[in-house]
Amino acid sequence: MNLLETIQYPADLRKLNVAQLPQVCQELRDYIIQSLATNPGHLASSLGVVELTVALHYVFDTPNDRIVWDVGHQAYGHKILTGRRERFSTNRKLHGLKPFPSPEESEYDTCTCGHASNSISVALGMAVAERLKEDKERKVVAVIGDGSMTGGLAFEGLNNVSSTANDMLIILNDNDMSIDRSVGGMGEYLHKLHTSSTYNNLRDRAAKTLYRWGVLNDDRKGRVLRFNNALKSLLTNQRNLFEGLNIRYFGPEDGHNVVELVGTLQRIRDMKGPKMLHLHTVKGKGFEPAERDATTWHAPGKFDPETGKRAEEQERPKSAEENVLSKKCAEGMSQPPKFQDVFGETLLELAKENPRIVGVTPAMPTGCSMCIMMKEMPERTFDVGIAEGHAVTFSAGLAREGMMPYCNIYSSFAQRAYDNIIHDVAISRLPVVLCLDRAGLVGEDGPTHHGAFDLAFLRPIPNLTIASPMDERELRRLMYTAQLPDRGPFVIRYPRGKGVLTDWRCPLEEIPVGKGRKLREGHGDTALLTIGPIGNVAAQAIQESGLDVAH
Amino acid sequence: MNLLETIQYPADLRKLNVAQLPQVCQELRDYIIQSLATNPGHLASSLGVVELTVALHYVFDTPNDRIVWDVGHQAYGHKILTGRRERFSTNRKLHGLKPFPSPEESEYDTCTCGHASNSISVALGMAVAERLKEDKERKVVAVIGDGSMTGGLAFEGLNNVSSTANDMLIILNDNDMSIDRSVGGMGEYLHKLHTSSTYNNLRDRAAKTLYRWGVLNDDRKGRVLRFNNALKSLLTNQRNLFEGLNIRYFGPEDGHNVVELVGTLQRIRDMKGPKMLHLHTVKGKGFEPAERDATTWHAPGKFDPETGKRAEEQERPKSAEENVLSKKCAEGMSQPPKFQDVFGETLLELAKENPRIVGVTPAMPTGCSMCIMMKEMPERTFDVGIAEGHAVTFSAGLAREGMMPYCNIYSSFAQRAYDNIIHDVAISRLPVVLCLDRAGLVGEDGPTHHGAFDLAFLRPIPNLTIASPMDERELRRLMYTAQLPDRGPFVIRYPRGKGVLTDWRCPLEEIPVGKGRKLREGHGDTALLTIGPIGNVAAQAIQESGLDVAH
Repeated sequence: MNLLETIQYPADLRKLNVAQLPQVCQELRDYIIQSLATNPGHLASSLGVVELTVALHYVFDTPNDRIVWDVGHQAYGHKILTGRRERFSTNRKLHGLKPFPSPEESEYDTCTCGHASNSISVALGMAVAERLKEDKERKVVAVIGDGSMTGGLAFEGLNNVSSTANDMLIILNDNDMSIDRSVGGMGEYLHKLHTSSTYNNLRDRAAKTLYRWGVLNDDRKGRVLRFNNALKSLLTNQRNLFEGLNIRYFGPEDGHNVVELVGTLQRIRDMKGPKMLHLHTVKGKGFEPAERDATTWHAPGKFDPETGKRAEEQERPKSAEENVLSKKCAEGMSQPPKFQDVFGETLLELAKENPRIVGVTPAMPTGCSMCIMMKEMPERTFDVGIAEGHAVTFSAGLAREGMMPYCNIYSSFAQRAYDNIIHDVAISRLPVVLCLDRAGLVGEDGPTHHGAFDLAFLRPIPNLTIASPMDERELRRLMYTAQLPDRGPFVIRYPRGKGVLTDWRCPLEEIPVGKGRKLREGHGDTALLTIGPIGNVAAQAIQESGLDVAH
Repeated sequence: MNLLETIQYPADLRKLNVAQLPQVCQELRDYIIQSLATNPGHLASSLGVVELTVALHYVFDTPNDRIVWDVGHQAYGHKILTGRRERFSTNRKLHGLKPFPSPEESEYDTCTCGHASNSISVALGMAVAERLKEDKERKVVAVIGDGSMTGGLAFEGLNNVSSTANDMLIILNDNDMSIDRSVGGMGEYLHKLHTSSTYNNLRDRAAKTLYRWGVLNDDRKGRVLRFNNALKSLLTNQRNLFEGLNIRYFGPEDGHNVVELVGTLQRIRDMKGPKMLHLHTVKGKGFEPAERDATTWHAPGKFDPETGKRAEEQERPKSAEENVLSKKCAEGMSQPPKFQDVFGETLLELAKENPRIVGVTPAMPTGCSMCIMMKEMPERTFDVGIAEGHAVTFSAGLAREGMMPYCNIYSSFAQRAYDNIIHDVAISRLPVVLCLDRAGLVGEDGPTHHGAFDLAFLRPIPNLTIASPMDERELRRLMYTAQLPDRGPFVIRYPRGKGVLTDWRCPLEEIPVGKGRKLREGHGDTALLTIGPIGNVAAQAIQESGLDVAH
């Protein structure tokens, strides 16, 4: 009997016996894989939290209890268990399910998701409200990945958790990954916690040994007691990072044993005060190709669920492994390349000529194709983690000492570095080249990911040059122009996805700043003024309409 | 002989004997106090780092070595030692010294200062550039306070420090204070580090004791060795927060013993890899009134250096201690109140009527006068630390559960919460009332602190109501209007300092959204359109000019 089909809502799930949950997990995992094979989406994250998702909805009384998913890439299982199984085939489609959890879509979705690292702050607000209102009791759970933990907002939230009365639970879903591998001290720190003998075990063992010795050695009892106290003080004061922030810490535990997870969650659910449960999970769990290469399988496009062969396999540069674009270019391309890949190739080309050029990316080396330069010049490219503010301010420090950083941030994520652009870059006119990828509408990823605001929020900032290429050649030439002497801070915004030219590898020449280009003479009293890639659409519209319009 | 007068630049300081440095510190401290008594500025922070400043310039080869001050409130000693002693009387004045360190002013100032928490990121960029360029060797030092450590940007920087090859030194200037007392788990954590037996001592003692036991007990040697290894592993893996992030940790040390500080800095200066020196300092050190009340003496205005009596003493509300405004109001005010105090009083008034109202401030309870509500309703006001992004997202969580947060952020610092406003508040139309204090020009604090951009960067965001009061009564009425049902996110921007009305305590009535107010009929073909407090200046100009202009 298929159990998943009996579950419309978590209340149905909670009618099952714990022993049935592994079967539910298996069916849920299969359902996700089968669905995404034909309707592409974020696969690997959701596979990694199947057991956690089932356990959370089993133990907590959703929707009265609140689950706050960070980013929401991982929330497909959550959607399927909360009334959206049958509509799941419309995920990320027009008029279909939204790409990320959204309160407008379901009462089980508790906040806007899409941008990383906000879950602790949101959940803390909810947990504090729960205490203030003194109405119906509810639990609040934030689920955050180790990748999101590198964002400053997550830390601001953690720092505030202990100074505000609340009973929230933070679940740290630790899989060593952002979209690419997680980077930074925090990731290494978490890795140590879950790879070495666990902290709790060690503490227990140390304490037990000492106490045994204390009993065995009467003559040394005084010394033993003193030592015990010193060690206890050591252990008390030198707790791990989270305990240091006054958050009760549990784990690390295996995030794929649903029965044990249910037991753990039941034990800690009603404890007072803030708590953290640290889970070790495998991104892509249960689907072998995704476990092996979780970056590619983060959002793999269509694939064959049996063979694991992806439809796009021939088209995408695989991390830094192979430079598909160059190869195709040599062969004569049939289709225009992605702007991303033109950025990546051109950056490497420029960096070979100009030793001052370095690359900075907040956790998107593959997404923005900086991996192309990273492969050849690892010492001159910096993946700083999900930390857009730091990416820009770090670039400012590099520029201050004479380097020329190309800092690539998705347009909507650059909203997180707004003050850094003003305060650390623009006021001092530092030569940071801010490359805003995914500017404009991005399609399926929806409202949180559209790069809709960058022109508006950047325009008022003094000292900035802001440019947008109409095609791949202009992108290359703008990237070249930006690194010429005395250009100051330079923004280049360009869209997601395919460009318009197959013959894109033009010579690198300067584009004069502040000048337009007349594409077409007109003789009427109308002219069309465009900036960036929309110019292509405008040109086509003029041509097809037959109107005599200047452009 | 006065030593300070012999020091034009740090090179002069470095000619002195270490034993002469305490005298230099005493003279520098006196010089700062005497100067600020007549030319107001940020007193307490600079007094707290006198010894550190002298030690840094003594040990490091500035300006070739880089010192990155976080915020820069504390950099007066630095200015005085780096060629600006004689011009220090022009500090914060028009055409005088800039309020914060600025590379435009001095080669000893290494980056834009003013906004908290950027020093680690900037210094990391510099330290990485130093390695990449392989030209002249230089050291890079970031000096950051425990208040700034609550900002997410500082954590993003820390997280990245260990994953990037560099030899930077971070000095943690730990005085338990932001402008108000530091809050959050990090502050408590640091407090434990410097109040309990120090970590290093304890570790040494534990290890020594164990090793001694290992020698003494031949029969238990196997067990002892196993236990030793377990404990070593425990100590290795469970190091403090900073060591957990792979940053070598030294301290905590007394930040006011300049001779010892010089020794410590000399010992660690040339060590490879990232390092942190944790200093315990007293904000306001050496000036008794400032040590006792560092919040008031953060920027005390003019004062008598002998008696410690401040010129403004009668005018300013002292933290939450006394509500000067109400008292003066009852007595009949001779001068208009500050917008800040009208905000603070009105918030309390509204909160008494509406139980859903809560207050959120990122480390500015005194500056924005939320302390007035905090005093009466501590459980409904939240100082979240220097963490503007979290302040907004935390407010979003509160609003999601039915609360009505008034989140007060200085306009220029709200730049740090831009994405939070868009992503966590506006997309979901949550009823967060964002009160932007210090909107517009702020005077002496200069370019980093002007609230110049808020209207421009908020205008493109959908779902926001943006308002600016012309006077204190309008501020009150806007604050009232914002909490009426179904208003969604609501921004109220108002300026720093005094308003225009003495009779400000008006009834709380709704102001219709989206409507202007005609102040004056005109019969010519000119009309003047204004928003916010500039309207007062415009009205006065029209009157004085005698022109027939509508307004």
